[in-house]
Amino acid sequence: MTNKVSVLVAGSWGTALASVLADNGKQVLLWSRNEEQVKEINEKHSNSRFLPNFELSPLIVATNSLQEAVEDADAIILVVPSSGMRDVASQIRPYVKKDALLIHATKGFEMSTLKRMTEVLADELPEMDAKRLVVLSGPSHAEEVVQKRPTTVVVAAEDLEAAEAAQDLMINAYFRVYTNPDVAGVEVAGALKNIIALGAGLTDGLGFGDNAKAALMTRGLAEIARLGTTMGANPLTFAGLAGIGDLIATCTSQHSRNWRAGNKLAKGMPLEDVLKEMGMVVEGVKTTKAAYELSSRYDVTMPITNELYLVLFAGKSPQLAAQDLMGRVRTHEIEEVPLELITKVSK
Amino acid sequence: MTNKVSVLVAGSWGTALASVLADNGKQVLLWSRNEEQVKEINEKHSNSRFLPNFELSPLIVATNSLQEAVEDADAIILVVPSSGMRDVASQIRPYVKKDALLIHATKGFEMSTLKRMTEVLADELPEMDAKRLVVLSGPSHAEEVVQKRPTTVVVAAEDLEAAEAAQDLMINAYFRVYTNPDVAGVEVAGALKNIIALGAGLTDGLGFGDNAKAALMTRGLAEIARLGTTMGANPLTFAGLAGIGDLIATCTSQHSRNWRAGNKLAKGMPLEDVLKEMGMVVEGVKTTKAAYELSSRYDVTMPITNELYLVLFAGKSPQLAAQDLMGRVRTHEIEEVPLELITKVSK
Repeated sequence: MTNKVSVLVAGSWGTALASVLADNGKQVLLWSRNEEQVKEINEKHSNSRFLPNFELSPLIVATNSLQEAVEDADAIILVVPSSGMRDVASQIRPYVKKDALLIHATKGFEMSTLKRMTEVLADELPEMDAKRLVVLSGPSHAEEVVQKRPTTVVVAAEDLEAAEAAQDLMINAYFRVYTNPDVAGVEVAGALKNIIALGAGLTDGLGFGDNAKAALMTRGLAEIARLGTTMGANPLTFAGLAGIGDLIATCTSQHSRNWRAGNKLAKGMPLEDVLKEMGMVVEGVKTTKAAYELSSRYDVTMPITNELYLVLFAGKSPQLAAQDLMGRVRTHEIEEVPLELITKVSK
Repeated sequence: MTNKVSVLVAGSWGTALASVLADNGKQVLLWSRNEEQVKEINEKHSNSRFLPNFELSPLIVATNSLQEAVEDADAIILVVPSSGMRDVASQIRPYVKKDALLIHATKGFEMSTLKRMTEVLADELPEMDAKRLVVLSGPSHAEEVVQKRPTTVVVAAEDLEAAEAAQDLMINAYFRVYTNPDVAGVEVAGALKNIIALGAGLTDGLGFGDNAKAALMTRGLAEIARLGTTMGANPLTFAGLAGIGDLIATCTSQHSRNWRAGNKLAKGMPLEDVLKEMGMVVEGVKTTKAAYELSSRYDVTMPITNELYLVLFAGKSPQLAAQDLMGRVRTHEIEEVPLELITKVSK
């Protein structure tokens, strides 16, 4: 029975997951580096920067101390930006219980190594059983979760018992949790959909309309599934909640940071200014670079990722990128289906 | 070389396709039963009921006479409601050239037989080569096509040359056409996505939010792919433009009739009143009934279709239907993957 849970850190998604846990009767320790935020959460039961107008349960207590947050925790939920995952994991190593359940809900790769988040966790926490590391993903805007609107997510771990323990911990009437054994697929799909969300914001910013956006999302899903299956994922994961599901929720919402970043780029704002103005992590920008490098490492064709890379990092105009994508000589819809997909599914 | 093309009938999608053809320099005969509409198209170059505020090319000429429309046509585009397809096909039989290219862009089944549209055409036009019958589908709001916004569609025929002839006829800089050999898949995906659009309107009408809608679309796509593959479709078609692509465009647009019908149902309006108020064909309503019957004929589990059927035809409240869908006991995401899908892909 998991009774004490800690959540790192108190961003919008971390706070929303803490809120689900509190609704399930758990005592939650929510870690933040920011002293003001800790004070606000403990005294006013609110997290106004990340989830304005929402009252937190008194079961959620914030702390500045990473040691205090994790040392007695039966379960630890990591919702750290991908760039900080290794650092946080190495910091908690001395305190974390060896049999604690570790669940992460971070969407992205580590840039320097192109590793997935469970790979980073396994590196830094060698005493833990890597098969029991869990990833949680799916179509889930934090704002809707705290309003208790119906939401479905997937938890994946190589060890089914660990995935089921995560499911038991999180599931309730408005938050439905499904298990999936495909850790690589869930992580790759969750990270790469941010690229397509960026592209969707760009298309919308150019005023292309719903037909073009639907085409971009369809072709985008095909190319991220192509890379994912080459990296060892099950193609069916891309057809599920962590794939199509999350892609739809992200690309069709104007709340998505990645969508908003793409939208601003299309309107002519330089990348630096976009990132400065948003003041939040835009995972899709870094993920585009990671995917560009992965596509070359695994020799997978990714035309949308390629054009977005040129827009973000080589000064190509969004208009020209869109034009080059539309003008591609390709006439048969299914000719680009990856052989990997077919061999994979037939196993 | 196809020079004279006829389009039946002058609804919004038929008129938009006529407009694409005129942009490609074709002489287009647009058939309508409505004399007022014929007069308006020929005198004012507009079709105000279906495409308000859009000026038609002078290359588009309307006619009341089905004989005149089809007798010299090198290509005929049928955009007839599914319920009228058999009747129109039998009426054109005496006049249609045996080597004419026949393309239909209708999304639905014939209710009395549960046949697909190319099957209905093959029944009624036995002199034509059934392998050369083409279906056109994909994410394509008519309003955006006439504004020349980038749009992608799929054309499918068993005979690749026929599909390529349709591609040559329609393709241009803003209207990209891809071929696909999977006629059954393109027709089934196009018809069944209307059910999910109805469900999406219902979910939105209940105020559930983007997380729930993304989940409904993901699970909805899985169940229509399950039925489609059992009916002989290639599962990859459901991951393409006629599948996911069209599903996204339809479910996320408030212009969709099916979405609007579902939305009104959720607000408590009885089905009869919804259909009366809309005054247009809502294919998704009939298609729900067809899919319900097909799921029983082919013994395929379709929980979303089943709940929508109960709402539409058995007086179940949308709230209760949604609740029953969310509460389903199902914990592993991929357990419902159809064996058909796996065997099919591995062939």
